[in-house]
Amino acid sequence: MDPFAAMNVVGLLAFAVAGSLKAADAGLDAFGVTVLGVVTALGGGTTRDVLVDRIPASLATTGDVSVALVGVALAVLLIRRTPDHVRVRDTPAFLVSDAVGLAAFAATGALVGTGAGLTPYGVVVLATVTAVGGGSLADLLVGRVPVVLREDFYATPAVLGGVAFWAVGSLGGPSSVQAGVCAGLVFATRMLALRYDWHLPRIRVEGGGEN
Amino acid sequence: MDPFAAMNVVGLLAFAVAGSLKAADAGLDAFGVTVLGVVTALGGGTTRDVLVDRIPASLATTGDVSVALVGVALAVLLIRRTPDHVRVRDTPAFLVSDAVGLAAFAATGALVGTGAGLTPYGVVVLATVTAVGGGSLADLLVGRVPVVLREDFYATPAVLGGVAFWAVGSLGGPSSVQAGVCAGLVFATRMLALRYDWHLPRIRVEGGGEN
Amino acid sequence: MDPFAAMNVVGLLAFAVAGSLKAADAGLDAFGVTVLGVVTALGGGTTRDVLVDRIPASLATTGDVSVALVGVALAVLLIRRTPDHVRVRDTPAFLVSDAVGLAAFAATGALVGTGAGLTPYGVVVLATVTAVGGGSLADLLVGRVPVVLREDFYATPAVLGGVAFWAVGSLGGPSSVQAGVCAGLVFATRMLALRYDWHLPRIRVEGGGEN
Repeated sequence: MDPFAAMNVVGLLAFAVAGSLKAADAGLDAFGVTVLGVVTALGGGTTRDVLVDRIPASLATTGDVSVALVGVALAVLLIRRTPDHVRVRDTPAFLVSDAVGLAAFAATGALVGTGAGLTPYGVVVLATVTAVGGGSLADLLVGRVPVVLREDFYATPAVLGGVAFWAVGSLGGPSSVQAGVCAGLVFATRMLALRYDWHLPRIRVEGGGEN
Repeated sequence: MDPFAAMNVVGLLAFAVAGSLKAADAGLDAFGVTVLGVVTALGGGTTRDVLVDRIPASLATTGDVSVALVGVALAVLLIRRTPDHVRVRDTPAFLVSDAVGLAAFAATGALVGTGAGLTPYGVVVLATVTAVGGGSLADLLVGRVPVVLREDFYATPAVLGGVAFWAVGSLGGPSSVQAGVCAGLVFATRMLALRYDWHLPRIRVEGGGEN
Repeated sequence: MDPFAAMNVVGLLAFAVAGSLKAADAGLDAFGVTVLGVVTALGGGTTRDVLVDRIPASLATTGDVSVALVGVALAVLLIRRTPDHVRVRDTPAFLVSDAVGLAAFAATGALVGTGAGLTPYGVVVLATVTAVGGGSLADLLVGRVPVVLREDFYATPAVLGGVAFWAVGSLGGPSSVQAGVCAGLVFATRMLALRYDWHLPRIRVEGGGEN
């Protein structure tokens, strides 16, 4: 299995779970849960493919949607076991699946960017956009401000992963090692940031308040 | 008139009406009504064209915007005849025009997907995305959860229409018959689902509640 | 400096400022302010490039993000000097930077559209979409109805600028003069509309009210 296919399957499964859990929190019924799971799984990769001018994999193969539907089914099992008063997106199941999706899609973005001949800079940007794209779209669709704007260690791990991908490559590492290091670093950074409540150094911004 | 041009005109008119009515419900004034009508009419087709890597028709020809503006004008007449306390999107005028747009754009998506050499699977996905794209964008812009997430017989008719398009084609039907059967099935399924309150079989999802 | 590069730098700076100020109003912290500033700056141009099927400049060069970050830094200085109870988006700093971004990006859209061989009509549409794209995306992300739907003299100046770009070109003006006239007209029309509360002639729409 080539590194893209492996990371793609993991990312599709994980983001389908995360997206379905978000939909349940928003009070959507089974159909809405299914659609949002599939859209979350396919959103980042479709954006990635449009940006580098290739026909999105979501249109070209049945595999991606099938994998996403397996993820939705897993999520439905989780949702049915969660007590009514618990917000699903605060559960470890959500946080871990979201972090796995972030990590795996950062790696697919970096792989596609490299394949499309982007500069190292472009590879890092594409890794980040691919990683945060699906979850941001899901948040928008249920009417929430996307997590990428609310938490500093959501995009930051993806940026670090993109840089690591490039660094390993420039040391001569094969693409499977690049992808593995990238995904591992994104996942570890995201989980540690959640566990220890990491934040970037603050430049205090005042004058806020809700709109 | 080739089948694409015919379906495109019908879809642009119908979705311009539907989008304008949504804008009126959201309290937008005449300018907002016009912009949302045009964006709803052009949104699905532009997404379709970007996905198969061609310059969107909305950029290449004045015809599409002109047709959309005719639809906006029709909608303004409807809006002025609606009493103040009625939500326009509960009226038959909205539900029918939205179903016509869904049907016509499913057919254009299937035609473009076939022309771009997509697999049968890709044709069905593109038909669905083209059909639900404009309305979803309109809902997002006025701050509502898109209807595609809230009603199971919104995307489902488009999927069925895409499958019918492929089935008729594999039986040797010409593209005009394919497009007609696709659009007719989408429209009929959507209207019947609204009339008889159809739902997909429920997998009960609990743990919901507003976010 | 060619006209595209000049307009691009001005637009990136101005929209990074405007986007950051919107984020502060929405109560986002320093990281959210930075991300929204960068997304606002890059959003319109990325949409423009995807529509004409070229790899977005935001992926191909470090320059665009660097300029956007300078704009974010300027915005943070402004935000820290604004008293807590003032909504930043009502300040002249916001209104002027937003109008400058609108003007400069209308010019880049017209220049790219001409370079891509679009018809005069397509050039006007691309100028408009490029101009209003970044701000609309920013509004969506913080959960507001985009200004393009709420104010009639937001898209209208961009349309006028696109028409002026074409008119100057058809009189034989070089592209730097086209771009300058386009941007100047957009900026002047937008500021005058704000100052004198201009509106398009009203076609009264009733039946509204919040959804």
